Amino acid sequence: MNEQKPLILITNDDGIDAPGIRELVGYVKEMGEIVVIAPDEPHSGQSSAISVNRVLRITDRGMLGDARMYSVNGTPVDCVKLGMHAIVPRRPDLILSGINHGSNSGNSIIYSGTMGAVLEGCMLGIPSIGYSYHSHDQAADISCCGEIVRHITSRVIERGLPSDICLNVNIPKCEKVCGIKVVRAARGYWTEEYAEYTDPHGKPFYWLTGKFHNEEPDCPDTDLYWTDRGYASVVPCRPDQSAFDKVTEVKGILSGMD
Amino acid sequence: MNEQKPLILITNDDGIDAPGIRELVGYVKEMGEIVVIAPDEPHSGQSSAISVNRVLRITDRGMLGDARMYSVNGTPVDCVKLGMHAIVPRRPDLILSGINHGSNSGNSIIYSGTMGAVLEGCMLGIPSIGYSYHSHDQAADISCCGEIVRHITSRVIERGLPSDICLNVNIPKCEKVCGIKVVRAARGYWTEEYAEYTDPHGKPFYWLTGKFHNEEPDCPDTDLYWTDRGYASVVPCRPDQSAFDKVTEVKGILSGMD
Repeated sequence: MNEQKPLILITNDDGIDAPGIRELVGYVKEMGEIVVIAPDEPHSGQSSAISVNRVLRITDRGMLGDARMYSVNGTPVDCVKLGMHAIVPRRPDLILSGINHGSNSGNSIIYSGTMGAVLEGCMLGIPSIGYSYHSHDQAADISCCGEIVRHITSRVIERGLPSDICLNVNIPKCEKVCGIKVVRAARGYWTEEYAEYTDPHGKPFYWLTGKFHNEEPDCPDTDLYWTDRGYASVVPCRPDQSAFDKVTEVKGILSGMD
Repeated sequence: MNEQKPLILITNDDGIDAPGIRELVGYVKEMGEIVVIAPDEPHSGQSSAISVNRVLRITDRGMLGDARMYSVNGTPVDCVKLGMHAIVPRRPDLILSGINHGSNSGNSIIYSGTMGAVLEGCMLGIPSIGYSYHSHDQAADISCCGEIVRHITSRVIERGLPSDICLNVNIPKCEKVCGIKVVRAARGYWTEEYAEYTDPHGKPFYWLTGKFHNEEPDCPDTDLYWTDRGYASVVPCRPDQSAFDKVTEVKGILSGMD
């Protein structure tokens, strides 16, 4: 037997210098050959954005243990796409994104750059997982994530994932995570979305802020219910947003030009 | 009867100066009171990206007929969010995005800024529709879009949409569109994704390009099948990417830490 170790591509949206990506490499380094390809700079809120009319460059960032590290002057999805095109020595067996400093829970994951990279991996047919920790403090001790990350990553390496889905994992801020719950994203909405200022010339400007209002805080089918109770949540996510179950209803609404 | 006309918020991702948004205003101006809020500059490929750590400003761009126009130095989703917060006189009854200069078909809609704005509208509970025309030539005559846009927009004003979905409409390049087909997004993938160059110092750089390979060109359930045959496609889209139907299967894969 001369079996090749799985190749694991690791990215994030907080950028190559964020502590979370280094922690993630540390947790999974025994499970495969690691290549890190992450944005030069933080790219929170970049969703599945791609750089359409901009030149992309790759910078060799040296080694982290046995893992080779590269950065790209683009978004998380750019890192996956360009990494696949120009960096990885062979097709990765797994793509991991994170550990994000901050929650990617509820239906707000649509804005998440962490999950943008993961959805891209899934569209490329590669099992892909995003990990987020519920604290924005990059100096925080996130070692409670280790057991969860190792369990989920090793299970997915061993057993795979259905080809049309990827995983969004959220780990609450606590000393010891109680366990893992597989659920759906909680529905909610944002309130008080902008802080308002006036510039020295008397003109207004705005800064995004806001609070997420969970519309179903008592529903045990949802991610936020469990992260609020000390569990890690796992939401299976599907890149394809087509609502095929609504085709007949929409045909009725639009009738007259079939 | 002193019924208020519907308020229609119109945005796009090609920017406030693109011809497509002006055409769209022209097609629907009789149907309601129009407010245009679009990016200062082109934002193709921005998906659902939001400006997280950047100051946003609103510029009054005057009138287009009876429609007031504003631009925002941000993404399509920023335009919807900030427009809702600081511009619109009341809650819009409808959000339209487009007419995009170029296709937003198949599973590539995940990158679409046009659809980013539409998905945002849907998450806010407002019926929302994205329109795209299959030519990147901004000087092209797109008048064949008029009949389709008017039909779909008036039907949605009259009959509404299911609350959890929005519509992605693609109009093929042709003189006369044959009709409307409600379908799902075709599955495919991109090949030859980057053009490679060498800078004057001998270092490589990359520019996104590529061809979409449709994996199911003969499937009449899909958008590209019909746009290839002269029909406008309508794909109902769901912002919530949770794959609740896969929860049980994923529980089995991850078992051991429940």
